[in-house]
Amino acid sequence: MEFVEGINKKEICGLKEMLQKELPASVQTEGAVHSVRDMGDVIFIILRSREGLFQVVCENEQWETLPEKIREGMAVRVNGQLREEKRAPHGRELALKQAEILSVPETPLPLAIDKWKLSASLEAKLNMRALSLRNPRERAAFRVQEGLTRAFRDFLNRQGFTEIHTPKIGARGAEGGANMFRLEYFHQPAVLAQSPQFYKQIMAGVFDRVFETGPVFRAEKHNTKRHLNEYTSLDFEMGYIDGFEEVMETETGYLQYAMEFLKEHYQEELDRLSLKLPAADRIPRVRFTEAKRLVSEKYGRSIRNPHDLEPEEEQLISRYFLEEYGAEFVFVTHYPSKKRPFYAMDDPEDPRYTLSFDLLFRGVEVTTGGQRIHDYKALTRKIADRGMTEEGLEFYLDAFRYGMPPHGGLGIGLERLTMQLLGAENVREACLFPRDMNRLTP
Amino acid sequence: MEFVEGINKKEICGLKEMLQKELPASVQTEGAVHSVRDMGDVIFIILRSREGLFQVVCENEQWETLPEKIREGMAVRVNGQLREEKRAPHGRELALKQAEILSVPETPLPLAIDKWKLSASLEAKLNMRALSLRNPRERAAFRVQEGLTRAFRDFLNRQGFTEIHTPKIGARGAEGGANMFRLEYFHQPAVLAQSPQFYKQIMAGVFDRVFETGPVFRAEKHNTKRHLNEYTSLDFEMGYIDGFEEVMETETGYLQYAMEFLKEHYQEELDRLSLKLPAADRIPRVRFTEAKRLVSEKYGRSIRNPHDLEPEEEQLISRYFLEEYGAEFVFVTHYPSKKRPFYAMDDPEDPRYTLSFDLLFRGVEVTTGGQRIHDYKALTRKIADRGMTEEGLEFYLDAFRYGMPPHGGLGIGLERLTMQLLGAENVREACLFPRDMNRLTP
Repeated sequence: MEFVEGINKKEICGLKEMLQKELPASVQTEGAVHSVRDMGDVIFIILRSREGLFQVVCENEQWETLPEKIREGMAVRVNGQLREEKRAPHGRELALKQAEILSVPETPLPLAIDKWKLSASLEAKLNMRALSLRNPRERAAFRVQEGLTRAFRDFLNRQGFTEIHTPKIGARGAEGGANMFRLEYFHQPAVLAQSPQFYKQIMAGVFDRVFETGPVFRAEKHNTKRHLNEYTSLDFEMGYIDGFEEVMETETGYLQYAMEFLKEHYQEELDRLSLKLPAADRIPRVRFTEAKRLVSEKYGRSIRNPHDLEPEEEQLISRYFLEEYGAEFVFVTHYPSKKRPFYAMDDPEDPRYTLSFDLLFRGVEVTTGGQRIHDYKALTRKIADRGMTEEGLEFYLDAFRYGMPPHGGLGIGLERLTMQLLGAENVREACLFPRDMNRLTP
Repeated sequence: MEFVEGINKKEICGLKEMLQKELPASVQTEGAVHSVRDMGDVIFIILRSREGLFQVVCENEQWETLPEKIREGMAVRVNGQLREEKRAPHGRELALKQAEILSVPETPLPLAIDKWKLSASLEAKLNMRALSLRNPRERAAFRVQEGLTRAFRDFLNRQGFTEIHTPKIGARGAEGGANMFRLEYFHQPAVLAQSPQFYKQIMAGVFDRVFETGPVFRAEKHNTKRHLNEYTSLDFEMGYIDGFEEVMETETGYLQYAMEFLKEHYQEELDRLSLKLPAADRIPRVRFTEAKRLVSEKYGRSIRNPHDLEPEEEQLISRYFLEEYGAEFVFVTHYPSKKRPFYAMDDPEDPRYTLSFDLLFRGVEVTTGGQRIHDYKALTRKIADRGMTEEGLEFYLDAFRYGMPPHGGLGIGLERLTMQLLGAENVREACLFPRDMNRLTP
């Protein structure tokens, strides 16, 4: 009988290993052929692997003896002498001895992915995502995104949160029936979850503190630079809070942790993208009405909608706090009750406003959160006051009927957070395969 | 201006902290009132928090002075003297001095969640999920599930994998059009992803090694103890493999890592559930046809379907390897080409079979994986041979047209893996809010 006993380390030298090895050394490495440049006497082959790019050099005579010529788009495994070469990007190169062709492309690449900065429209990049992301700078954005997600889970695990997986198909949505994708589920009408809101709340009654990182679906008819119809939401919900301030404190703690985490684990990607990370050591907080007043005064903009922030106002609020306090994040608190869902807790001192907040980051809202109503009577009263029905909410209300701790939480749009960190113009730059009103493929 | 500066440590003593504190100590703690037992002179209050249960004791005289009587389902914050008490579960208890009621339930609990083992049917437990999971033993299962997921990501990150998020709404499914949930997407027909198969493959051309942990959707009309119509899939895909054995090696490495990870971080939950973890140090591998023959011979069962394994055969194969080798996992390899998707790589030595495998764990298939075709011509030929159309597969095929490394991967059903680890009878025990043909709520 044969057994599988775990990972067998292969004799393949990764990029980082090649940069550390004592020279000269005989090594074997592998990768995709990123570019081939024929200089006459020598041919330069740039190999791309998950760790980056590395230069392989082949003397012309050697090149002639190769059974099959190496060309762009191939996957290869090469043997050779690792040696110092001051002019090579890492100060080292591999002098090719043998090459094994692992895979051969059918067609030459239609995009010059070996350019430092990919020269293509967003539309073209998205249409050829599998290809455009082979450009190291393009793919670096998604490594940074991974870092933001890992840091979120890592930080929350340390704070005693438990990860949950809640259903994406349901009988009714978290925030009413609008903007939901509908489907037929074995002859029953069903919808896709707009958020894990109800589930994470009732799970706060089980684990005290929970989080989820997963897709959410919004059938909003907004085709803007900051809307996606499917996105990844970083959600948490925490029990036993004394106020919604604790939710903001936890988010601030996450952001502090994430920035350090990126520096520690993703410095190469930060460098490649020339990213300057924002300070998150202290984040100003300002009331909704006060924020409106401040920007209206400073920038001479009249307040048109007293109940909500227009995108331009969000930009101005961020500008204000950057100019006045050097802050790139700002919490805007106490949103009007009218504009928040029924489960938002009203401010007992002024019930026209809620104990809730948005986090603005460089002019864009990246988080919505707040304290929730935990008292059954208060919750059912609010539902009735809004003229809503309890139908479809039974499982949610049951958790409250049998007792729930005071709690609050938030949802962070991962793509928006990434977009703002990257300084991208369009949220689609921060989504591997975006879904918008017109885009259902790739 | 006010600022949020991160987490302010509250003066709340968690369970673990209470168990370590020098005695006697004056502490404040909080939790849900799990049970109240009035013994005449004293009242025992068991508090439930994310860390477990703790006994609070209240003298009758003290009890009479409380402004509101503590009862089950409340959330409370209590002050008192922490002291030794040999008869208490942890050898310690808190003598109550003051209590603050944070939340009051509307109705007494309809389930005796304070029993060691919850006495309720699966149906009742699922219908009252928000409540039944407040039983510490019930919720422990999902802590173990968290551990399996964390270990998956942690292990793969260490192995150089990058986490990706792929769309769940798409124009066409990964494995043909059958068993897909359909929806309307802004007047276009769309489907929910059955798996991230195509996306993870093309991303192996970008990051070499990728993984995803997310929901998948299968409209299969199977209402069995091991089927869910929405579940969490742990997927990975790795490039530059020399054979599908490397995929099995990586899974074995994961399982080894996961078992150690559970022991290190979830021992309390393992104890609570009396779980015995399976050995994963070496996992036998057996060819599909050989496995069929072995169980047919040993257990006298005739081979009815030579192209697939029936559930009973999977059980017998597991039984065989447990009896013969003491193994609780077994890789069954070389499934018939007919029963594998078009992208599966056929065995060059016998193209009736594929370079693929399933992992059986205690009688149930928990993983399907294998090597994929990476050559464009071979892939399009297979599509043509099967009488399939390339329509809708353009974005997938493009990645191959421009060159893909040899690669393979797998998908693990998280709920099935959890179910088998728990020794549960039904996969629904291992899903917070299961979706099956009849269940769309809670």
